[in-house]
Amino acid sequence: MSGNLRIDLDRLMGRLFRLGEIGALPGGGVKRLALTDEDKAGRDLVTGWMQSLGLAMTIDRIGNVWGVRPGEEDLPPVMIGSHIDSVATGGLYDGTLGVLSGLEIVETLNGAGIRTRHPVAVGFFTNEEGARFAPDMMGSGVNQGELALDEMLAATGIDGMTVGAALERVGYVGTAAPGALRPACYLEIHVEQGPVLEEEGIEIGAVTGVQGISWTEFTVAGVSNHAGTTPMRLRHDAGIVAARIAAEARAIADDLGPPQVATVGMIEFGPGLVNVVPEHARLTVDLRNTDDVALQGAEARLAAAAERFAAQEGCALTTRKLARFAPVPFSEEIVELIAHTAEALGHTVKRMPSGAGHDAQMFAPNCPTAMVFVPSRDGLSHNVREYTAPEQIRAGADTLLQVALARAGVVGDSAGQP
Amino acid sequence: MSGNLRIDLDRLMGRLFRLGEIGALPGGGVKRLALTDEDKAGRDLVTGWMQSLGLAMTIDRIGNVWGVRPGEEDLPPVMIGSHIDSVATGGLYDGTLGVLSGLEIVETLNGAGIRTRHPVAVGFFTNEEGARFAPDMMGSGVNQGELALDEMLAATGIDGMTVGAALERVGYVGTAAPGALRPACYLEIHVEQGPVLEEEGIEIGAVTGVQGISWTEFTVAGVSNHAGTTPMRLRHDAGIVAARIAAEARAIADDLGPPQVATVGMIEFGPGLVNVVPEHARLTVDLRNTDDVALQGAEARLAAAAERFAAQEGCALTTRKLARFAPVPFSEEIVELIAHTAEALGHTVKRMPSGAGHDAQMFAPNCPTAMVFVPSRDGLSHNVREYTAPEQIRAGADTLLQVALARAGVVGDSAGQP
Repeated sequence: MSGNLRIDLDRLMGRLFRLGEIGALPGGGVKRLALTDEDKAGRDLVTGWMQSLGLAMTIDRIGNVWGVRPGEEDLPPVMIGSHIDSVATGGLYDGTLGVLSGLEIVETLNGAGIRTRHPVAVGFFTNEEGARFAPDMMGSGVNQGELALDEMLAATGIDGMTVGAALERVGYVGTAAPGALRPACYLEIHVEQGPVLEEEGIEIGAVTGVQGISWTEFTVAGVSNHAGTTPMRLRHDAGIVAARIAAEARAIADDLGPPQVATVGMIEFGPGLVNVVPEHARLTVDLRNTDDVALQGAEARLAAAAERFAAQEGCALTTRKLARFAPVPFSEEIVELIAHTAEALGHTVKRMPSGAGHDAQMFAPNCPTAMVFVPSRDGLSHNVREYTAPEQIRAGADTLLQVALARAGVVGDSAGQP
Repeated sequence: MSGNLRIDLDRLMGRLFRLGEIGALPGGGVKRLALTDEDKAGRDLVTGWMQSLGLAMTIDRIGNVWGVRPGEEDLPPVMIGSHIDSVATGGLYDGTLGVLSGLEIVETLNGAGIRTRHPVAVGFFTNEEGARFAPDMMGSGVNQGELALDEMLAATGIDGMTVGAALERVGYVGTAAPGALRPACYLEIHVEQGPVLEEEGIEIGAVTGVQGISWTEFTVAGVSNHAGTTPMRLRHDAGIVAARIAAEARAIADDLGPPQVATVGMIEFGPGLVNVVPEHARLTVDLRNTDDVALQGAEARLAAAAERFAAQEGCALTTRKLARFAPVPFSEEIVELIAHTAEALGHTVKRMPSGAGHDAQMFAPNCPTAMVFVPSRDGLSHNVREYTAPEQIRAGADTLLQVALARAGVVGDSAGQP
C-alpha cells in the first residue's frame, strides 16, 4: 500500500554526496556557482540520473531543467523542485536536497510500480543563489513569469560574463518558453538555514510562506572635524546618526516582536580615523516580516527615525531602497497536508515562515505551493559546515513522498493494489 | 618704548608663504612629512633665517633646532617654539606660525635694538605631527625627557625608514643631549585647529592646557547568522553591541557637558553583508577632557556600558587602550599674562583648553608654559584649506611679542630707553 511507501535513505544520501563531490572545497562544502564548469558538471550528473529514471526532460530558455514521470491522466504535474547551484562557500544540502529528494521519490515510485493520476515532475532552476548573477531565484522567476527572460539573459555576472553567454558555454540553452511549466502544485524540501527547528527540537517545518524583505541603505553626510578641538554643539557627526539608526532598527524588532527581524549587516564611516569626526556614514538595514502591513509599519518608523536623527545632528540623509519583496503566502491546504502527513509519520511539526527566499515563492502565485523544512545544525547555511543528519533528511523526504502521492493521486501499484 | 613695539606683518606673512612653497601641493596646502627631502628643504630655509638673524644655533640628537638671541644676563632663555613638519595634506599655518612668529619677534627686537635680561630662543621640534613616525610630538618629547632618545631613533616610519636613518639622510643629527634645553618659560602661538574662536568672534585664545586624551578600541565577537532565518532571540549580533557603544559615547559627552568630547571615528562590521548578522565588529572611541577625574569617570562609564551591552547580546568583548594622555595644565601666571596682554592690545580673549596635542605640553612639566591661539577659518586644520587671516595673525604675534618681552625683561633699546 502506497501509504507505507518509504524512500531509500542510503540511495538519497549517496546522490547527495556524489553531487557534493562536484565543486568540492578542500575543507568541506562546495563551490558550484551558477553556469560555471562545476555547475555544468552537476547538471550533467543530475540530468543523467533523470534519464536513467526514465523521466522525459525539458530545458527552457533560461536553462531550467525538469523531467516528468507520466501520470495516468492528461493533467498538469505535481512539481518537486529546487536548485543545484551554490554560493562560493556553500554546503552539501542547500537546494540539492530538494532536487535529489525529488529523484529519490521518483525512484521509489518506479520501484514500487506506483501509478499516479497526475504526472510527477522533478526540476532544478538556474541561479537560485544569485551568487554569480543578480537577482537570485532567476530561473524560477523567469519560468513563472516574475522576471523578464531577455533582461535576465543580459544580466552580467561578477566575472563579466552574461547569463546568456554562460548558458551557451555550458550548453544548457533550451527551447521551452516561460509559461511552459504550469504544475498542478509545487513542493520543495529544503534545509531550514536557520536555528529554530533545532533549538525547539522539532523534526519537520511546514512552511507557511516566505517573509517579506525590505533592504534600505542610509547614507549620512555630515562635516569632518577634529575630535579634540570641535565642541559637541558644533558637530555634524554622520557616524552618530548611523549608530542611532542601527540601534533604532533593533528597537523596532524588539518592540514588534516575532516574526519581525531587523539586521544591520554593514556600516562604514569616512574618513574612518580615530580622531576625526565622521564626514559620512553608510549602513544597510534588512527588515523582514511575514505580514506586509507590519513590515510597512517597521519601514515607516525606521525612515521617520532616521530623518529625525539626521535633522537633530544637522546632517543630510539619503535613503535608497536596495530590495523590496512582499511576503509570499503558501497554500494553507498544502501546509496542512504537510503538517498532518508528517504527524501521521510520527514526526514533530512546526508551522513556520521561511526567512530566506526560495524557488517556491516564484510558483506560489500560480499554483498551490508549500515547502518542507528539515533542521540545519547550528542554524548554519551558506557555510561549508552546513549539516542535516541523515535521519532528519529521511523524515523530510518521507513526508514529501507522501504529500506528493496525496496530491498526484495513486491509481495503483505493481501488486495491482489501489 | 618696548610696549609700543609691533611685529612686521608683511615680513611674517612673507616667511609663511616662502616656507609654504616647500612641499606645496598642486591644489594648495603642503606635504612636508618629518625628515623627508621637503622637511630638509624647510629646515635649511629656516636655519638660514636663524643665521641671518644672528642666532646661535644648537641641534640636538633627535634633530630639534633652536637659535638663541643673547640676553644681558646669564639666564635660561624665553623659548618660543613649534614645528615645521606637516601632515600629508597640511595647511600653511600649522606649526610654522609658531616658529616664524618667533623669528619675526627676534627680527623686531633686533630692529629696535631691544636688549633683554633673558636670552630669547626660537626653535622647531622634529616630527610633531607623527604623520611619518609614531608617536607625535617626538622631538619635543625627547628634548624634555618625556620620550626615550634611543627608542625614538629606532622608530620605523610608514615608509620603513627609521628616525635615526632619516635624520642621517637629511643631515640633521646634532650633538646636544636631552636636557640641554632648560628654558625659563615656553611660549607657542598656534592656529586653534577648531571652530570655537571663529564661532564666538574672539581674536585670541589664552590656552589653559591640553585636554587629556583616551583612545579605546572595542572589538566585539558574536555569531554570524542569516538575517532572515535567525529569530532575534537567538542572535549574538556583534554589530548592535558596537552601535550601542557608539551611542553611549555620545550620551556620555552629552551628560557630562563641555569640555567633555566623545568621538567614534571608525567602525566596521564583518563580514559586512546586508543579509548577514555581523560576526564581529570593531570601533574606536576618542574621549577628551581637561579634568582627569572627569575623563576617568567617562572611561569607566563607557567600559561598564560596553561590558553590559556585550553580555546582553551574548557577545565577547575585547578592549584595547590605544592611547592615554593625562590632561596637561599650563601655567596660570602665563595664561593670565597672555590674556591681559591681548586685552591691553585691544583684542578679545577667551581662556580655553587645547583639544589637540602640541609641543608645549612636553615643556609644561618642566617650565612655565602657555600658548596663544588664533582662529582657524571653519575650524579647519590638517587640511589644505586651513586659513587664518593676516590681521588675526598680527593680533596673535603682537600678543606673543609683548608676552615674550615681559618674561624676558627689557633692559633697554637702541634709543637708550629702558
